[in-house]
Amino acid sequence: MLHEPHHDGSELYVAESAPLGSPVRVRVRSSVHRPLTAVWLRTVEDGEPFFTACTPAAAEGDTIWWTADVRIHQPVQRYRFMLVAEDSFRWLNQAGIFDHDVTDAHDFTLSAYDRPPAWGREAVVYQIFPDRFARSAQADQHPIPEWAVPAQWGDPPIHQGPHTPLQFYGGDLDGIVEHLDHVLALGVDTIYLTPVFPGESNHRYNASTFDSVDPLLGGDAAYRRLIDAAHDRGLRVLGDLTSNHTGDTHEWFRRAVTDPASTERGFYYFAADGSHEGWKGHGTLPKLDHTCAELGERFRAVVARWLDFGLDGWRIDVANMTGRHGAVDIAHDVAREIRRTAEAARPDALVLAEHGHDATGDLDGDGWHGTMNYYGFSFPIWEWLRDPRRPVPSFGLPVDVPRRDGTAMVTAMSSFTASFGWGATATSWNILGSHDSPRIRTTTGSAALHHLAAVLQFALPGVPMIFAGDELGLEGVDGEDSRRTMPWDEPLAFRTRTREVYAELAHLRREHPALRRGGLRWVHVDADRVAFLREHPDETLLISLSRDGSELPELPEIERGEPLLVVGEGGVAPRARIWEVRV
Amino acid sequence: MLHEPHHDGSELYVAESAPLGSPVRVRVRSSVHRPLTAVWLRTVEDGEPFFTACTPAAAEGDTIWWTADVRIHQPVQRYRFMLVAEDSFRWLNQAGIFDHDVTDAHDFTLSAYDRPPAWGREAVVYQIFPDRFARSAQADQHPIPEWAVPAQWGDPPIHQGPHTPLQFYGGDLDGIVEHLDHVLALGVDTIYLTPVFPGESNHRYNASTFDSVDPLLGGDAAYRRLIDAAHDRGLRVLGDLTSNHTGDTHEWFRRAVTDPASTERGFYYFAADGSHEGWKGHGTLPKLDHTCAELGERFRAVVARWLDFGLDGWRIDVANMTGRHGAVDIAHDVAREIRRTAEAARPDALVLAEHGHDATGDLDGDGWHGTMNYYGFSFPIWEWLRDPRRPVPSFGLPVDVPRRDGTAMVTAMSSFTASFGWGATATSWNILGSHDSPRIRTTTGSAALHHLAAVLQFALPGVPMIFAGDELGLEGVDGEDSRRTMPWDEPLAFRTRTREVYAELAHLRREHPALRRGGLRWVHVDADRVAFLREHPDETLLISLSRDGSELPELPEIERGEPLLVVGEGGVAPRARIWEVRV
Repeated sequence: MLHEPHHDGSELYVAESAPLGSPVRVRVRSSVHRPLTAVWLRTVEDGEPFFTACTPAAAEGDTIWWTADVRIHQPVQRYRFMLVAEDSFRWLNQAGIFDHDVTDAHDFTLSAYDRPPAWGREAVVYQIFPDRFARSAQADQHPIPEWAVPAQWGDPPIHQGPHTPLQFYGGDLDGIVEHLDHVLALGVDTIYLTPVFPGESNHRYNASTFDSVDPLLGGDAAYRRLIDAAHDRGLRVLGDLTSNHTGDTHEWFRRAVTDPASTERGFYYFAADGSHEGWKGHGTLPKLDHTCAELGERFRAVVARWLDFGLDGWRIDVANMTGRHGAVDIAHDVAREIRRTAEAARPDALVLAEHGHDATGDLDGDGWHGTMNYYGFSFPIWEWLRDPRRPVPSFGLPVDVPRRDGTAMVTAMSSFTASFGWGATATSWNILGSHDSPRIRTTTGSAALHHLAAVLQFALPGVPMIFAGDELGLEGVDGEDSRRTMPWDEPLAFRTRTREVYAELAHLRREHPALRRGGLRWVHVDADRVAFLREHPDETLLISLSRDGSELPELPEIERGEPLLVVGEGGVAPRARIWEVRV
Repeated sequence: MLHEPHHDGSELYVAESAPLGSPVRVRVRSSVHRPLTAVWLRTVEDGEPFFTACTPAAAEGDTIWWTADVRIHQPVQRYRFMLVAEDSFRWLNQAGIFDHDVTDAHDFTLSAYDRPPAWGREAVVYQIFPDRFARSAQADQHPIPEWAVPAQWGDPPIHQGPHTPLQFYGGDLDGIVEHLDHVLALGVDTIYLTPVFPGESNHRYNASTFDSVDPLLGGDAAYRRLIDAAHDRGLRVLGDLTSNHTGDTHEWFRRAVTDPASTERGFYYFAADGSHEGWKGHGTLPKLDHTCAELGERFRAVVARWLDFGLDGWRIDVANMTGRHGAVDIAHDVAREIRRTAEAARPDALVLAEHGHDATGDLDGDGWHGTMNYYGFSFPIWEWLRDPRRPVPSFGLPVDVPRRDGTAMVTAMSSFTASFGWGATATSWNILGSHDSPRIRTTTGSAALHHLAAVLQFALPGVPMIFAGDELGLEGVDGEDSRRTMPWDEPLAFRTRTREVYAELAHLRREHPALRRGGLRWVHVDADRVAFLREHPDETLLISLSRDGSELPELPEIERGEPLLVVGEGGVAPRARIWEVRV
């Protein structure tokens, strides 16, 4: 694979992006060991393909660079390369190299829109589910609400049945402030909190209002303290906003129900019989109708208000369904308006979309900056690194996670990231699990395989998002079970190799531009072993993993010294290494 | 391959389409030789995946049918299947079966929009380039225009240089009428004429008006005679309309130039310095600006007028660029309006888009019914059946046609047709060449390989479109060279096996519903041989081809008698067979 031509959207291959109408210089690498007679750049302008000859430079070692200019004719400009050798040619696009004709779907893309904020692309994110993270001393003063089923901090979550959303542990925002040192020690620079608006559940995705922070969490004042404390320590803070629905206790919905003549009636989908649409049919989560202009205004005011308050951006809940309802699909318009509003409030605001499956087509434009990349990242890793000894529950599928080999993992990842532009891939979140899925430790069944997953999370393009507790190896068979409390009272729980691995990885990411902004070149893929390069103008790193303990791939052409990171030692343990290398 | 599960959009697998909100019954075939433990239907509604268990029926022979209902939640509803066996699963979508996760891009689709007209899906189309088809006795009475470079009927085309568009042979519409018997004898039921509006070129894609037929062709009266004569013989007639541009001699453009204050000024893209945009930079082909509402009205009046006159539909020239200009893309809106207008004028009107490459995304909605399927059909066949002995010029690429094997052909076809819905694939034109490309006889280099290409043209899903002269084995190294005149004065030229092969294929298509409306199941693919089934509730056909003369694939599980069609005999000649079979 090392001798195959390569291009990706990273700095080594693409000059800075340019506005509409301007050229952007791009280049392709080929190897003298596999000579090409020509390389053609293929662009599509107004639906018509155009070809431009690439200019080869003299060989630098084994490498020949081929250069051409892409004119940014459309806001999202697609291109690919034709690799000519002897009497045939192959296509090079984001999904790889093909010796048959392919559609434009996996072409490389360049966007004339503003790039996502740099901090958002380089972050290490830590997800906190407030009810389960930490209780401050003040937490005892918050009265337990009527709907709640109180739990002790050490109780296991009730992860199935009617009590699941009601079980209340009482974590609060000041509790988070008290543990920011733990977060900082991990190397995290951004905390993302699931919703903090009041809602009659422990997850608060059924908001009663967007105008104030839940008093059970300490209210607006505690949010102020948390955001200030985080900012003082150099941490960014992201909120979580439900754009698809509210709770049925929401003030808008109450008004819509009690006064059918109200403006708010138009915010939701009411049928003639008075029934209403809800998220996946749940009446307690009434779906918002974004074709309503007044809702748009009200919603954008919420977006702006909390950014003005101090948030650095939003994670948008169920973005995949927002603005979609049968024959109506204004999802992109809603995304664009939310992003514009966010950027007006704070120029470097991040808007990150939850999208549980195929976010293709919703990114790279002037809407969402990136997505929670379950399908292009999490699923392939779960499948490669799942516990080989017993069935592993999946997330959102009617069957267990299948065990697949490294080739399937890389092909699956490519098929998704090939449909994103490089910018969206690099900004999207590399997730090993969240409050919605089984815990990665449960999926992998061992610390050893979990650590390999963590290496992929930090070493592949994208933004690592750690669900609080993953660094301690917490377990959980489904999203609800994964919402276990942080064991602050058990110091031993914090003295784990897992925590060290995360901290080492975050440190490496901070120190090495190749991990934050480098390209991605696979150099070895087989059933049990994968290796890839992250290439940056300043350095190149090699990352190599073996899930079965067999020797890591040899790759004699890559010069390397002592590894920067060693995960897994001795015997036939799964292992991973990271080196700085010369190719 | 015969034991693999299968589904496609044909009648054997999908019940009739249904309106929005209704269910459509779909089914998947699996084989008892490869047991499945479950099949799940996966749909996406409002951006969220849903799973429905399919119900298996008792085995019929080797086959088990799995059934479920797809709810048409969106106007274009996507779905795929999860095939579960033991502890793993594979995905079945339009591109095939995958043991890794895939995006939704190749999901099966069902459309709630009206289907393309049945005649348009079942047609055999014959393309006529009027200047080169036939001269009637009246042709001598048409004065040769000033711009023209007169040619004798037997002269070779000047296929490069400034005289190429000016070389004038003087074929006319009454000439076509005189040769309709030849067309009918071929088994054709639809003739498609390239433009008949006046334009200062032999191709007439640079119209001077859309309001009258070129007097050089016999004018409106001759068009009347041709359409009536065709209809009398049961032939449909399609026109050719340039929606992307006009000629610079067009009455609209002249007014726009001479009177900058005119309404028509807004029909085109004029820069401040008075220059204007043209097709691929050609100033003689000024590009139309469809964001201009008045142009829209005027253009739709043209669409309707000639359907009212008698045309059965339109082939839309350069549909891929129409309505696209840098950051502006209203291509789909223009397509929708043209289709609506056409259907209002004639409910069974066909609107077929020229799209020289990737028409994905422009079909299956309420716009174009289908496309000229160069990339999903022509290119893969050219690559498999190109002359193995010498370089073969391509169409629109900067390199020759590479020679590829059968696997590459089938994969390339799948990657395109998998991005269309079944309806668009079945309605799109299977093209071996046109007035824009090299002739298929030149590309294949032999009658034997040409005949195999013709078998694929008639036997794969889609509508065969024969470029007049292909049936005689006319040659041409590029589109212009391919515009050779029909050799009416050489009776021997018509006594060819090639003509018989076309006529036999057209006859089979008319007699066998499986060829017109059947599904597509590949049962053997290797470098030199391919075989596939066309399945219909009433019958199943097997089509088998070998390009190198090696024996056709064995397929002992398929019962067959005497072949319906035999192409290629003896020695190591390329060969093809069609059988009616039981599987």
